[in-house]
Amino acid sequence: MTRTVANGASNTAARIRDAARFLFARDGYAAVSMRQLAAEVGVQAGALYLHIPDKQSLLFDLLHENMESLLVAWDAEPRGEGPVGRLESFVRFHIRTHLDCPESVFLSNMELRNLTPENFRVIAGLRDQYEAELVAILQDGSAADKMRVPDANLAAKAVLAMLTGVSGWYRDGGRLSRERVERIYWNMVRRAVGA
Amino acid sequence: MTRTVANGASNTAARIRDAARFLFARDGYAAVSMRQLAAEVGVQAGALYLHIPDKQSLLFDLLHENMESLLVAWDAEPRGEGPVGRLESFVRFHIRTHLDCPESVFLSNMELRNLTPENFRVIAGLRDQYEAELVAILQDGSAADKMRVPDANLAAKAVLAMLTGVSGWYRDGGRLSRERVERIYWNMVRRAVGA
Repeated sequence: MTRTVANGASNTAARIRDAARFLFARDGYAAVSMRQLAAEVGVQAGALYLHIPDKQSLLFDLLHENMESLLVAWDAEPRGEGPVGRLESFVRFHIRTHLDCPESVFLSNMELRNLTPENFRVIAGLRDQYEAELVAILQDGSAADKMRVPDANLAAKAVLAMLTGVSGWYRDGGRLSRERVERIYWNMVRRAVGA
Repeated sequence: MTRTVANGASNTAARIRDAARFLFARDGYAAVSMRQLAAEVGVQAGALYLHIPDKQSLLFDLLHENMESLLVAWDAEPRGEGPVGRLESFVRFHIRTHLDCPESVFLSNMELRNLTPENFRVIAGLRDQYEAELVAILQDGSAADKMRVPDANLAAKAVLAMLTGVSGWYRDGGRLSRERVERIYWNMVRRAVGA
């Protein structure tokens, strides 16, 4: 990711978020102190509070940004023809975006439990919204007799778990190219839903 | 799970493990202190050390026990006929055991990063051993022309991620029975690997 430096304040805020993303992903939210975070950014602990109210807000911001940018990116993604084409677009989009930001994916999956109940509800709502995109594709595919999906909600959860898992093991420069990984997953998903 | 009370010492050790499993799963390993753990068990903090050397050993023990009991259970599981029958046995076994112990599954997936490198290697080795069981089934199925799996290692990871995800959303007494969930997942897996 590249970022243009705007002014001192927003630059510090961005550096705090980057440092928090890195430390939370490495050590876990609970293990990271505001003092450590300040040291990672290179400012005094007190200076952090000029930019963020507390650690919880920072976690919420990171997870919120992850989901918002995922939804915005999917909205802008070109779609294939018909339900099967849209399913292929979704599968490839999900793998690509998740491989692009493994640290954000890891954080989003690991730190849900550390959100306050109100914050959790917001993030869970955005996750549901994303999942609903896939459910709709599967329902349309079933209705058009292009897919065999006895339970679109269950199938969506199964497909998402399968695809998200890729960011846990895939490494660029390894045995398989991204295109090959996308293609193999797409074929598995296509067959799994009878398309 | 039922447990017979043997003697005072082993009973306390078992209670410490139960309390640790519960607290680590709820709050995360990093956030739980030995003092909290002692309070949960109902003993003095110093008394914990009569039973366990430190928090890391406790985490390792819990994750090690999870993987060992999974491997032992799979070893004892009756297998279906041929590669496709064995695949069905594996899928149903994995879902059943993972739904039986959601707390252990959650812990095993969340706390790998908090193991020391040596402890991580041991647990990762056991996980690889379990995954290798599925890889062997998929390879046998491909060799016998009963499945279409271009990359058995990738397919095994995809199937495991899909199946393990079930413990994140399934609740007994909800909309779907366990048998129905097992059947739908099995059909998706069967088709995904072209069986």
